[in-house]
Amino acid sequence: MPTAKSRTPDPKRKLNARMIWHFGPKGSAGSASMKHALGGKGANLAEMCRIGLPVPPGFTLGTDVCQRYYDAGAALPSDVVTAVRKAVRRLERETGKGFGNPARPLLVSVRSGAAISMPGMMDTVLNLGLNDAAMEGLAKQTGNRRFALDARRRFIQMFANVVEGLELARFESILASEQSAAGLESDSDLDEAALARVVDKYLKLFKRLAGRPFPDDPEEQLLRSIAAVFGSWNGNRAQEYRRIHKIEGLLGTAVNVQSMVFGNLGSTSGTGVCFTRDPSTGEDVFYGEFLMNAQGEDVVAGIRTPQDLAGLGEASPAAYKALQRVRRVLEKHYRDMQDIEFTIEDGTLYILQTRAGKRTARASVRIAVEMANKRLISRDEAVRRVAPEDLDRLLHPQFDPKAEREVIATGLPASPGAVCGTVVFTADEAKERAAEGQAVVLVRNETSPEDVGGMFAAEGILTATGGMTSHAAVVARGMGKCCVSGAGAVRIDDAAGVFRVGGVEVADGDTISLDGTSGEVMLGSVATMPADPGAEFETLLGWADRIRTMKVRANADTPADAKGARAFGAEGIGLCRTEHMFFGDARITAMRQMILAEDEPARRKALRTLLPYQRRDFAGIFKAMDGLPVTVRLLDPPLHEFLPHDEAGVKAVAAALGVKAAEVRDRAERLSEMNPMLGHRGCRLGITYPEIYEMQVRAIFEAACANKKKGLKPKPEVMIPLIGSVLEYTTLRDRLQAIAQAVVAKKGVRVPIVFGTMIEIPRAALQAEAIGAEASFFSFGTNDLTQLTFGFSRDDIGSFLPGYLEQKVLPADPFQTLDQSGVGELVTLATERGRSARPKLKVGICGEHGGDPQSIEFFQRTGLDYISCSPFRVPVARLAAAHAAQA
Amino acid sequence: MPTAKSRTPDPKRKLNARMIWHFGPKGSAGSASMKHALGGKGANLAEMCRIGLPVPPGFTLGTDVCQRYYDAGAALPSDVVTAVRKAVRRLERETGKGFGNPARPLLVSVRSGAAISMPGMMDTVLNLGLNDAAMEGLAKQTGNRRFALDARRRFIQMFANVVEGLELARFESILASEQSAAGLESDSDLDEAALARVVDKYLKLFKRLAGRPFPDDPEEQLLRSIAAVFGSWNGNRAQEYRRIHKIEGLLGTAVNVQSMVFGNLGSTSGTGVCFTRDPSTGEDVFYGEFLMNAQGEDVVAGIRTPQDLAGLGEASPAAYKALQRVRRVLEKHYRDMQDIEFTIEDGTLYILQTRAGKRTARASVRIAVEMANKRLISRDEAVRRVAPEDLDRLLHPQFDPKAEREVIATGLPASPGAVCGTVVFTADEAKERAAEGQAVVLVRNETSPEDVGGMFAAEGILTATGGMTSHAAVVARGMGKCCVSGAGAVRIDDAAGVFRVGGVEVADGDTISLDGTSGEVMLGSVATMPADPGAEFETLLGWADRIRTMKVRANADTPADAKGARAFGAEGIGLCRTEHMFFGDARITAMRQMILAEDEPARRKALRTLLPYQRRDFAGIFKAMDGLPVTVRLLDPPLHEFLPHDEAGVKAVAAALGVKAAEVRDRAERLSEMNPMLGHRGCRLGITYPEIYEMQVRAIFEAACANKKKGLKPKPEVMIPLIGSVLEYTTLRDRLQAIAQAVVAKKGVRVPIVFGTMIEIPRAALQAEAIGAEASFFSFGTNDLTQLTFGFSRDDIGSFLPGYLEQKVLPADPFQTLDQSGVGELVTLATERGRSARPKLKVGICGEHGGDPQSIEFFQRTGLDYISCSPFRVPVARLAAAHAAQA
Repeated sequence: MPTAKSRTPDPKRKLNARMIWHFGPKGSAGSASMKHALGGKGANLAEMCRIGLPVPPGFTLGTDVCQRYYDAGAALPSDVVTAVRKAVRRLERETGKGFGNPARPLLVSVRSGAAISMPGMMDTVLNLGLNDAAMEGLAKQTGNRRFALDARRRFIQMFANVVEGLELARFESILASEQSAAGLESDSDLDEAALARVVDKYLKLFKRLAGRPFPDDPEEQLLRSIAAVFGSWNGNRAQEYRRIHKIEGLLGTAVNVQSMVFGNLGSTSGTGVCFTRDPSTGEDVFYGEFLMNAQGEDVVAGIRTPQDLAGLGEASPAAYKALQRVRRVLEKHYRDMQDIEFTIEDGTLYILQTRAGKRTARASVRIAVEMANKRLISRDEAVRRVAPEDLDRLLHPQFDPKAEREVIATGLPASPGAVCGTVVFTADEAKERAAEGQAVVLVRNETSPEDVGGMFAAEGILTATGGMTSHAAVVARGMGKCCVSGAGAVRIDDAAGVFRVGGVEVADGDTISLDGTSGEVMLGSVATMPADPGAEFETLLGWADRIRTMKVRANADTPADAKGARAFGAEGIGLCRTEHMFFGDARITAMRQMILAEDEPARRKALRTLLPYQRRDFAGIFKAMDGLPVTVRLLDPPLHEFLPHDEAGVKAVAAALGVKAAEVRDRAERLSEMNPMLGHRGCRLGITYPEIYEMQVRAIFEAACANKKKGLKPKPEVMIPLIGSVLEYTTLRDRLQAIAQAVVAKKGVRVPIVFGTMIEIPRAALQAEAIGAEASFFSFGTNDLTQLTFGFSRDDIGSFLPGYLEQKVLPADPFQTLDQSGVGELVTLATERGRSARPKLKVGICGEHGGDPQSIEFFQRTGLDYISCSPFRVPVARLAAAHAAQA
Repeated sequence: MPTAKSRTPDPKRKLNARMIWHFGPKGSAGSASMKHALGGKGANLAEMCRIGLPVPPGFTLGTDVCQRYYDAGAALPSDVVTAVRKAVRRLERETGKGFGNPARPLLVSVRSGAAISMPGMMDTVLNLGLNDAAMEGLAKQTGNRRFALDARRRFIQMFANVVEGLELARFESILASEQSAAGLESDSDLDEAALARVVDKYLKLFKRLAGRPFPDDPEEQLLRSIAAVFGSWNGNRAQEYRRIHKIEGLLGTAVNVQSMVFGNLGSTSGTGVCFTRDPSTGEDVFYGEFLMNAQGEDVVAGIRTPQDLAGLGEASPAAYKALQRVRRVLEKHYRDMQDIEFTIEDGTLYILQTRAGKRTARASVRIAVEMANKRLISRDEAVRRVAPEDLDRLLHPQFDPKAEREVIATGLPASPGAVCGTVVFTADEAKERAAEGQAVVLVRNETSPEDVGGMFAAEGILTATGGMTSHAAVVARGMGKCCVSGAGAVRIDDAAGVFRVGGVEVADGDTISLDGTSGEVMLGSVATMPADPGAEFETLLGWADRIRTMKVRANADTPADAKGARAFGAEGIGLCRTEHMFFGDARITAMRQMILAEDEPARRKALRTLLPYQRRDFAGIFKAMDGLPVTVRLLDPPLHEFLPHDEAGVKAVAAALGVKAAEVRDRAERLSEMNPMLGHRGCRLGITYPEIYEMQVRAIFEAACANKKKGLKPKPEVMIPLIGSVLEYTTLRDRLQAIAQAVVAKKGVRVPIVFGTMIEIPRAALQAEAIGAEASFFSFGTNDLTQLTFGFSRDDIGSFLPGYLEQKVLPADPFQTLDQSGVGELVTLATERGRSARPKLKVGICGEHGGDPQSIEFFQRTGLDYISCSPFRVPVARLAAAHAAQA
């Protein structure tokens, strides 16, 4: 029903404008730029014709005709009717076919097409014109009477439902009863006789339900179909769709009437799909497949095996030549790889559709680079063309898409890659078996810092709980290891040494495969393909680097990670976590001694043992990143994370330290916290136990001075974590700066002494002016900032996030993509306030969002100086930062 | 040493102004308003004289003389010397005494006194004028040569140290050797001969160290002492004090020279202290004590027992009469109860000091009310005079201050009161023993919602961990129970059934006492005094109510609490927590059934069992608060809080529910969270399990409708907790509002349907404009808002907060007093943004800060409509809100 609103005439609309826009191989009046007047589909058809592609001819009724339809009270005005009749005549002349012509019947499709795509929301009628006479003609032409009968049946049914509004089920039950009478499984098995009976029954049913016979006159069919499509613009579905998608300001839908062509008119006809380049490798070769004497659906259905496109030169030489011209025209015009649908009707090539072709990540990069090298597009455009996530895929192995997968569970795609390995349930076993040369997959409910060694030894990690930013996910991404996290259906039975999921039981020693890109867990070994970014990868990133304005650093904790990150193009380290350095065998003992110490002298003694280890690590990292800034975060996690969590561990620690197990247990219990995330960690440790940070700062500057003496250029930046007030910062900074100065003075070399802070506590963002006056840099810890701004624990969010996303209460996981309106406001505000106190304040971000393209765009707008992310995300971030600069 | 800065002459300072200000029984030129010129002490002395009090006469050298002293290069200008000499002559005339007069020696004190008090920072000289001749005179006058010798010894020592800058220890060692030679324990036991030797040795030592003899001329003593006091203005100590306390803009110190009077000149002399009203009850009676022939220190030392003031009429009738006049003058002038120090020298009364008297909470209220009733002060002033915390003390029993206490531990003063009881370690035992009539103290590491029944049965609660806003603290305050939390030294040994602290072991069944106001834990039973707020309590609160502009509501969860809160003057309920309603025996089983249910129908079934209980509770609460708004918060804590935490509990639940223990364990384990504070709770439960909130809203409105049908006026307000985004709010509000409307429509009565939200997540504060457009009210949950803004878990803060307070990194526990610059900015911003969308948005606060006077002042400034706090804090909040309105 037309609504009052839709009837309101637009005073600006020019009456007596061109109502009908022809298109065909001879050209068109419209073009791609006329979407508003012709709708998206009409404009595209016009554009294809305009550039000389052989498109089946037809005409478009403009969107303003839709308005006139409603203005006239949901009816086609008589001048429109006259114009349509004239357009049909022209179409008949152009195609050499005729409406109801038994020799060369003209059949058309009638399709909607608004300026903004509303897929499936409005009506379509196909095979229009197929009355009895035309049906006979089609049967003769195709030599396939069954096909012609089926086409007629479908047309009647579609017209009855779409145009006449009759109940579809009534028609389908006729088909079903014929099918069951013949004992057939599918209506596609019905024979000619049965289909003839169906057509007969359809026509009778139509008459009974509609109260008048089925219209035999194609012109009547057409005019009523056009009216029906206009009418569907204000159907409930379409109105709802526009409301939900906030589509406003459109005149209405256009209607496209296009002659239908058939690829099954005999051996000189055919159909196919092709790509202007190889969509899987990106190679500049013509790629596709075709079938002669077939319809498009035959190619899709897979009953007959299509031939490689190369064979078309022999099967239909003229059409193939035309198609090669089309390829050149298309790439030149659209300046992108195109996916083309074509039909050859009696030796004549028709292009039904062309669009930018889907491609693999590998192809995406190669095509963009090669097109730029051939000056088809600019380098700027090449960079813009490649989705950052594609680069990530290129850096990790993928499963062979043709391999069979027995998926037993699906978790979160926490870290990309494709791995197969033996199931182990403990970090120790992972290390042992890996040492024996086995590929292992570590399966845990969740991981903790104790597991890091085992994670490093494993090929992949599977966890039952935890989200995209759980410990397992973050550490795995940092290592570039494949990880599936939060596979909630997986139940680990430690006692039995198995995990169960659904009805399947997987034991220690069984093989599973993990897909870190889809989150799928598969039984057995699935064939993989190695990572191969291709030669164009570096070229593209080089171009991206020249575009972007933000620096890209990596989060890396070891000299090896630092080297890897630099190879990926990192321009420094934005976050060097020092806690992972305490988990080596000798170190963890000293660390635990420090934690179990009763007083400060005992703590200092244990810290003296740790100092040389830290110094060596820092020296290695500074060397790997020589000349580039390395931001070292002082100890962040609560101390209880370093204590063993099980009885065996407690006993081992007690024995190693020569204390009673009860003492270790008691201390662990007293250190345990209700909400460790909000507990005694970060700078709070620094305030309570000054000696820990003092040792770390001493190690940093002793390492830097040692490197400097070797002629290197260390650029350490000391970052104090979890600051919430300026007094926390200045108390620690004053104390630690003095130590750094003393070390540097004693060593007698020049090393920059730079102190700054993470902004990860909401209060720090609010107090950023005071803190900015004291700190040389801010680095947003958006993981914790998101946790605190939302009050979400990223370890526990798995229990309710799925429901939130499903009910659309949240648009996305805020730990993956920065919440711009909430957390983002704090980021913006802290940046502004910090710079109001210190205009040259360096501001970066080192949370997980540093590798997320959408978030990177936000950081660019906010004016950040750099982003920092996992080493394997650095290429993604470089490209995303270029995109952000382009926007 | 004078600094360059202090020498800079102030151009505005008028030279040749009056340098010396006399004061005495005959009046004074200065007054209390002249602190800047005369210093605080000088102005007070002047004021006392101005209103006719018999003050020992003397004179003040103004603060500008201090400047002149420095201007002259740290010397007294000659005109000042001349003026001082003149002033001494006048003083001699006025007192009838003379410098060095052996019959009636004039002795004076020389004291500093800046405009802002700097206690102990500058120098003082006493007994000045006590040369040999004067000493003999004093010996004769007092009939106590030992006293005179001791006074002379002290004067020499003080002068040597303060004026001459000689080392104190050298003088003290002379005293010590005399003492040890005589085998005495204290120098106060030295006899006359020994003291005479000491004086002799002092004079010799002085000469040796100073290179000149001790000045015998009192005028020389005086001039040098005055110079020394001026000099101490720029001593290191004083400069440091001014820097720390940010004291700026002062000219310098004044110097007060005052004649000394002695209460030990024989039987017509004496000394005493008195209060113009009874400082312990506030009764309008003259209260105090005195000793004849004694000095002030004798009263303090407790060697002789002072007499009650009533006896002074007999001992010294004229002085007593004079003192009674003083009492009337003082109360009329200062309009407050005064604490007076007096001395009677030879029958003449002298007032040495008067100041507002310290008083008990009880007296504070009574005095304020009675003074207002007598029009001595206005009611406004009476309200201003009483500290809100005083009211809190009046509502809880206190320990008898005279009772002995064996303190074994000190924790946080979590909830006031004074209780003694038998130690129990479990909630069940608390209930059992209480049922037997025993008073019990529940001792736990920390409490959980399971313990609430036991807490209610106990007299008091002691916890080893947890802060001022831990579960134990919050619940205890709500119940008005005494609680000491976070007594970190207490180690509970469950196996042995004891707790240990220091070397003490306290077993189950032993008696301890808790002081909820001091946080002390005492062994055995300490005598208590019952709570008795007194008749004036209500009067004062009535006056406060007429002044304040914010409403005061209570946080109350049961009909009994609601009744109690209303009796305390609550004007509604600001926070009715519904979770405590689920812990009754029958309820907890249904609740656990709901949690363990596999699907929604099973959950709904269990919820149907809970519905009548909730409805009954709500009906009772609405009735108790009839006509007043009751804000009901929908279920907030995570579900695992309702499951048992130990093996016995798990088995009991499994048996009760007819499921396997393993199932209960498994569910409990799957529900457990790393950071429950940031987990699946609040509205997140409402999104995941809509049926829970649906049942609650149904119960609320069925209860309201039932009350309405009985002629009552229920005013429910439904509060959705833990909102972080407007979509969470609208999703739940839309769903629940429909249910409320359906219930009300079905019952056919008119009940207001009001929905609002807590603002306790930083993101909600940032998004307050969008949320305010949808919600009828905001209630700040400042506990959680503080946790998230700081990233502090209130359950875990005990490990680092003490260090933070000690190192002054934080000015106060932010869970007790709102952090105005951080959390407060979010409160202000959310209020502004919310009201920008909805100008009449009702805004309140229901966190623990609602009962904190300093925070209440902030809420008044921020424009909140109401504050809500524990019932027992309501009187405090009423008074604090009045103070806030006055400010």
